[in-house]
Amino acid sequence: MSVNKFGRILNFTTWGESHGSAIGCVIDGVPPLINLSEEDIQIWLDRRKPGQSRFTSQRKEPDKVEILSGIFENKTTGAPLSLVIKNIDARSRDYGEIADKYRPGHADYTYDAKYGIRDYRGGGRSSARETASRVAAGAIARKVLDSIIPGKVKIRSALIQIGSQSINREHWDDSEIEKNPFWCPDAVAAKNWAGYLEKIRKDGSSVGAIIEVIASGIPVGLGEPIYGKIDSELAMAMMSINAVKGVEVGEGMAAASLTGEENADEMYTESGLVKFKSNKSGGVLGGITTGQDIVVRFAVKPTSSILSERKTVDKSGAETKISTKGRHDPCVGIRAAPVGEAMMALVLADQLLRHRAQIGNIDF
Amino acid sequence: MSVNKFGRILNFTTWGESHGSAIGCVIDGVPPLINLSEEDIQIWLDRRKPGQSRFTSQRKEPDKVEILSGIFENKTTGAPLSLVIKNIDARSRDYGEIADKYRPGHADYTYDAKYGIRDYRGGGRSSARETASRVAAGAIARKVLDSIIPGKVKIRSALIQIGSQSINREHWDDSEIEKNPFWCPDAVAAKNWAGYLEKIRKDGSSVGAIIEVIASGIPVGLGEPIYGKIDSELAMAMMSINAVKGVEVGEGMAAASLTGEENADEMYTESGLVKFKSNKSGGVLGGITTGQDIVVRFAVKPTSSILSERKTVDKSGAETKISTKGRHDPCVGIRAAPVGEAMMALVLADQLLRHRAQIGNIDF
Amino acid sequence: MSVNKFGRILNFTTWGESHGSAIGCVIDGVPPLINLSEEDIQIWLDRRKPGQSRFTSQRKEPDKVEILSGIFENKTTGAPLSLVIKNIDARSRDYGEIADKYRPGHADYTYDAKYGIRDYRGGGRSSARETASRVAAGAIARKVLDSIIPGKVKIRSALIQIGSQSINREHWDDSEIEKNPFWCPDAVAAKNWAGYLEKIRKDGSSVGAIIEVIASGIPVGLGEPIYGKIDSELAMAMMSINAVKGVEVGEGMAAASLTGEENADEMYTESGLVKFKSNKSGGVLGGITTGQDIVVRFAVKPTSSILSERKTVDKSGAETKISTKGRHDPCVGIRAAPVGEAMMALVLADQLLRHRAQIGNIDF
Amino acid sequence: MSVNKFGRILNFTTWGESHGSAIGCVIDGVPPLINLSEEDIQIWLDRRKPGQSRFTSQRKEPDKVEILSGIFENKTTGAPLSLVIKNIDARSRDYGEIADKYRPGHADYTYDAKYGIRDYRGGGRSSARETASRVAAGAIARKVLDSIIPGKVKIRSALIQIGSQSINREHWDDSEIEKNPFWCPDAVAAKNWAGYLEKIRKDGSSVGAIIEVIASGIPVGLGEPIYGKIDSELAMAMMSINAVKGVEVGEGMAAASLTGEENADEMYTESGLVKFKSNKSGGVLGGITTGQDIVVRFAVKPTSSILSERKTVDKSGAETKISTKGRHDPCVGIRAAPVGEAMMALVLADQLLRHRAQIGNIDF
Repeated sequence: MSVNKFGRILNFTTWGESHGSAIGCVIDGVPPLINLSEEDIQIWLDRRKPGQSRFTSQRKEPDKVEILSGIFENKTTGAPLSLVIKNIDARSRDYGEIADKYRPGHADYTYDAKYGIRDYRGGGRSSARETASRVAAGAIARKVLDSIIPGKVKIRSALIQIGSQSINREHWDDSEIEKNPFWCPDAVAAKNWAGYLEKIRKDGSSVGAIIEVIASGIPVGLGEPIYGKIDSELAMAMMSINAVKGVEVGEGMAAASLTGEENADEMYTESGLVKFKSNKSGGVLGGITTGQDIVVRFAVKPTSSILSERKTVDKSGAETKISTKGRHDPCVGIRAAPVGEAMMALVLADQLLRHRAQIGNIDF
Repeated sequence: MSVNKFGRILNFTTWGESHGSAIGCVIDGVPPLINLSEEDIQIWLDRRKPGQSRFTSQRKEPDKVEILSGIFENKTTGAPLSLVIKNIDARSRDYGEIADKYRPGHADYTYDAKYGIRDYRGGGRSSARETASRVAAGAIARKVLDSIIPGKVKIRSALIQIGSQSINREHWDDSEIEKNPFWCPDAVAAKNWAGYLEKIRKDGSSVGAIIEVIASGIPVGLGEPIYGKIDSELAMAMMSINAVKGVEVGEGMAAASLTGEENADEMYTESGLVKFKSNKSGGVLGGITTGQDIVVRFAVKPTSSILSERKTVDKSGAETKISTKGRHDPCVGIRAAPVGEAMMALVLADQLLRHRAQIGNIDF
Repeated sequence: MSVNKFGRILNFTTWGESHGSAIGCVIDGVPPLINLSEEDIQIWLDRRKPGQSRFTSQRKEPDKVEILSGIFENKTTGAPLSLVIKNIDARSRDYGEIADKYRPGHADYTYDAKYGIRDYRGGGRSSARETASRVAAGAIARKVLDSIIPGKVKIRSALIQIGSQSINREHWDDSEIEKNPFWCPDAVAAKNWAGYLEKIRKDGSSVGAIIEVIASGIPVGLGEPIYGKIDSELAMAMMSINAVKGVEVGEGMAAASLTGEENADEMYTESGLVKFKSNKSGGVLGGITTGQDIVVRFAVKPTSSILSERKTVDKSGAETKISTKGRHDPCVGIRAAPVGEAMMALVLADQLLRHRAQIGNIDF
Repeated sequence: MSVNKFGRILNFTTWGESHGSAIGCVIDGVPPLINLSEEDIQIWLDRRKPGQSRFTSQRKEPDKVEILSGIFENKTTGAPLSLVIKNIDARSRDYGEIADKYRPGHADYTYDAKYGIRDYRGGGRSSARETASRVAAGAIARKVLDSIIPGKVKIRSALIQIGSQSINREHWDDSEIEKNPFWCPDAVAAKNWAGYLEKIRKDGSSVGAIIEVIASGIPVGLGEPIYGKIDSELAMAMMSINAVKGVEVGEGMAAASLTGEENADEMYTESGLVKFKSNKSGGVLGGITTGQDIVVRFAVKPTSSILSERKTVDKSGAETKISTKGRHDPCVGIRAAPVGEAMMALVLADQLLRHRAQIGNIDF
């Protein structure tokens, strides 16, 4: 597995820098004969693209995707799909300060220390712009899931916390999620968040967030044991998203506080199907799906690009200060939600193909 | 990457079931000319083995490791190391109940659903017994780290929470960790935990735990971007350990509540070296090490093998009840600490070799 | 992919040295519910083992295989199979000469140059003894093929040349192959070879051989394009066998001399099935099987362990001479035939599982 | 390893169809700080491109490469390089015949059988056009080799046989290779080939070829044992090139005829360096380089696109005939020479980085 590649059977390799001419990815292992057009990908990219509200970066990128290979007469052929997204709004400005100074909380210092060179323009390879490729690849993964398990799998996400403000889970309403700029399932919280985040934005500050991603309609038996566990791969997937610092499945960190009686989901049958009385496990036991919803949460740290002046060092090793101006997100976690969904889709679709390899076709 | 294999350059493949004749692993990619004996591995296995206090499983396994290949005159040759640990205390008893009934919170149901067959004896392949192989492989990883960065890297772990009981971080004393059966760094907490866990044990119940693993002496620049991030691989590594439900790096889930000002670690220089005023990042920025301590936490759920009767279903789909008797851990998280250390060592050693591949030797 | 691992979905990792305590392998990705016993593997190992005629090494190894994991009630479980073969007849003798001097045509010098250390006892890791693990893994691959395509696939091999002596293809009779110690399909040639090779053996010399491996009953559509071509993987597989210097598919090197008219196999239909008038392609077009026999040939060089004194150098760089005594094969190519079959089975079974992953179940 | 990906540490993934809008590749694992411009790649692409003499396809492709990512200020950054080559001369013509009929000797039938769909325009994914990406990636591999072993490694290739016509090895003159359109090292043979091939071309026929690729200046100790052997990877690499049917290293298939005395290269020392009296091994022993020239040969079959009418079947299964008109190569082997060089460079550079990973820097 390469550093820029994710997945085993269904896999994708991303490339490109924030202010280069384009970014993109190559998606391999796609089953043939799946209907696919650029629009199928574009709808997901549009949910992630910046500049859609005042709470995300004001960079204006149409994020228009082009498919350069792997389809013929609007169907996949089994050959690799090459997707390209041109960078349009990569402002040519003076990068002097970022070029020499290391922004605290950024990868500037570590990239320079590792490689001895760094494309500092807009964050280069370390920019969250790379996640557009993930969302594009995720759109393909959704198509793969739907081609093998038609109409069953649904992947959705929501922000359940922004900075110090959490939702009230009793207010959860899926239909609210698309109605506010925060992917917030709690209408009351969404209203409060607008004011809260507006202040953060005006202060030139930023806050973190927690995103929950839920996959429904997953058959029992997906995932592999030991080092191919579906929860282990989801942890890797989510933690690989820029700025993520924690990942939980089901009860997550709170499982530590529970007793065995509280934690283990009791089982029963209904119309001949095995059911669970609760879902503390988050839909995964022994790395393999139970058939319940797969529930994953991840925490995104506040973007480190803030207006406040911060102490740092420069390339020469001299101490200095830095204040990041520019078009940054007061809560970068908002745009991470579609990325989390994409990574969920990619893990599930890959596991589905791996399941077919070892076990054969799944019956539904 | 196979399901039973972990790592890219330095990698290992584990095999074996809980009640089979033996378990073991093959470790590949080991640099040549490293001094190695069975004792170098045994010392780490001895820290994980069961039956060392009344707070862990009473199964009596000497966990004696044999090296079958890959060394010559007590040095590694670059060929794969085959390690074998015989299963001694795999009691031949009546497995009738477990054979047919699915234990809630266990992988019994999901393995059967996936494979159509399940080695139910002692949990078979899904048993935490597999982690002995990880600890053995981890011992090799420590040797690799020490051969390339002599005397620098130190990996330690501690339990910071058992059930509802947390440590007081102000009491943290590394020297306490080995003095109590809980790897607890807080002498006061350790004392309380003894009584707390004794009650849990007597009740036939169980609780979860949070383990913190810390690696010191790590050079700046280890780790790779995007899908090879060191924190992403640590998340995968820890989540792959049996019963783990959450993983955090640095501030972890709490990073969501912070502002950008609070979160980004300011930088300065000291004797010409770059230093950080805090370590909210947990030693990783952009997937690459900062040179600070790498700090990872993971939550282990309570073992689902409890005395209390629980509702479940059997293989035929009929509803039934189950009560798990036998030699189980009131807090399986205790034995996860040495496993977490091993996984940390394995990720770091692999990344060190991968760094050499792309960049060349590291200077220290 | 590790150095000691072969295959993607169905894969195996070998370990062990010629004169260590044991050799073995771990086979991963095996579908569950396949009937398997040690005897299923032993029958193939018995065909490869040394000391069966005066034309192969006189080392006496029973090559008794043990399965340590991955089966339950005589069925595979989907967990990794660990196979171990003890080394019995690893004579403890004085290795002084081999320890210091580099045998021409052997890997002694290159291993030392690469690793700075070498287990010289019986060739260590570079010994053809490693191929016993391949044959054991190949037995599993045959089981996998037979479980998915019951009763169809047949893999056989034959020596078509020993030293300067070729068979007459018009004499080819499959039933002769098992009747002589050379796997020779031509009864007349076999008779001549006995005398020819007896002289080589008595002279303390050795000769090379060409082995042909044929797989029948293969469905059309196996194999993958570009870098996953089935012929490309067969080339890698055969060339990885000790002492192999050339690999051909179908017409092989002779294809260079043909015209397009001579080379391209014309197609027709018979009972609704697509057929070919010839098989110049060796059953592979564009890396994908045509449904015809897959025909691969490979050349094994003469073993370099010969009685004649040869000029060489020692570890100190001094010029010297060496004469290899001991139990070596006058034509090591004989024992390569079962190994070639095993590698064919392993490539085909792996490709079959990979096909299921991307395309779904194959209909037959 | 994906189907469209080659290499482990230094690896590349290709995409694109013959008559799509573009082809390209993503190259990963490239060390940072290597000077790189598009010209460095273009010079190698120019050697492969069609339409340079009347003996290769008359398709007119400028094969102009663009680097979309991974360089900054003309240096590699360690991030993936995305290379794109636009397809210019993909004639929009009536593909009706090829769309329905299977060309004998082509992958038309096997692709359709496998995937149920086939981009038949110009051969789609199975076209040799894909090899332009290999040559581009090979240019990067040469840069990598030169950055680590400056000025040492030289890779060259020559055609040693076209159809029935072989060179006379005693006439070999490296300086002749670039002087004729056949990469022929024998001036006399080159002259004869012109007439020979002109007749083949006028007849609408085609012939095969044998290409020899030689790498000089390779350090001793490159390559890995067992399944990572450098000759095994070269066999896979060359056999993956379109139309290749056989691969040899050193003596190749002819090694079968030799005795042990003839085959094993004797060793001596010169100025303190180990030398060999001959190079029957082709520079590889036990999968590891000896420091001598690495010598690989591969046979390319005649292109199956010939004017002569041939029997075949169509998609419906009906028997029919086909005659391929269009711009095809009378000897496609000519254009395979630069591709063989590229694959050699890619295998060597990857092995060099893998060597650094396990062993550390190489001293020269």
